Amino acid sequence: MIVLGIDPGTACTGYGVIQGDGPGTGLVSLVECGVIRTKARDPLASRLHEIYEGVAELLQRHHPDALSVEDVFYAKNVRTTVVLGHARGVVLLAGQQAKVDIHELPPAEIKKAIVGTGAATKEQVQFMLTRLLRLKSAPQPSDAADGVAAAFACLMSARVPTLRDSQASRASRL
Amino acid sequence: MIVLGIDPGTACTGYGVIQGDGPGTGLVSLVECGVIRTKARDPLASRLHEIYEGVAELLQRHHPDALSVEDVFYAKNVRTTVVLGHARGVVLLAGQQAKVDIHELPPAEIKKAIVGTGAATKEQVQFMLTRLLRLKSAPQPSDAADGVAAAFACLMSARVPTLRDSQASRASRL
Repeated sequence: MIVLGIDPGTACTGYGVIQGDGPGTGLVSLVECGVIRTKARDPLASRLHEIYEGVAELLQRHHPDALSVEDVFYAKNVRTTVVLGHARGVVLLAGQQAKVDIHELPPAEIKKAIVGTGAATKEQVQFMLTRLLRLKSAPQPSDAADGVAAAFACLMSARVPTLRDSQASRASRL
Repeated sequence: MIVLGIDPGTACTGYGVIQGDGPGTGLVSLVECGVIRTKARDPLASRLHEIYEGVAELLQRHHPDALSVEDVFYAKNVRTTVVLGHARGVVLLAGQQAKVDIHELPPAEIKKAIVGTGAATKEQVQFMLTRLLRLKSAPQPSDAADGVAAAFACLMSARVPTLRDSQASRASRL
């Protein structure tokens, strides 16, 4: 069971690929993590294209069973949130085109799945990820860790048992 | 000179294709207009895919010299605005992939280009579009008219003379 987690962002989109043996069977391993960076001086359309291509390449290379995308964080700055929506849009498109099962998780749900509380700090999430994945240090940079966290939360969530039944899983979200 | 105008929306994306002989040479004609509708009960990723496919098909069929996309309207409902950002994201991506010159116009700028004031009503815009394009009635539904308006404003705008120099045009927007 392989999950690709994405923390979308126009400037920096974090991703993490983890592998587990299914729900309740223990070990989960980090396969790969990193970030897709775009240049602030490039037009938005060009930056969106880079994010799309990066995610499409990850989907093609890892063939994940699920794509977990962090839900929009309603920042105080509406402009930031709206631009973030553009980035999320092309990430979801890449997932849809790869016909992978897509899960959208709010930040609080991701924290709760990893630390046990939706109010956990970024440091607590990184500490737990390091332990759970048996790493020497937290994934770097922090956007990459957020991508890994999204993947981990998806793997741990109660939704996982229905992952293979893509239709049922999607219907349940409506 | 052909321009494809898009009014992005998750439920209904309006589009209009117009043809002119360049700035200041008079006649502009409506080539095609319509809407890309998606089902509210489908998952967001699936709806985004339909919008993307629809816009990509229009770009491929008409080979426009420019793509004009209405800028995000900051609705009072932040959720609506953010979801709209997702739709805009995949529209911009389709334009980038088609290597067409992309123009993002705020609603007020579109109204000003057509009616002469950024405070014009929807009805005034439709009235002027009907006259300018020598139509018997305004493009229907109204989302399609909004797409036509975006295309028209782009064609009329002072930016048009630099359209062919894509690099300069993009740089000027930074």
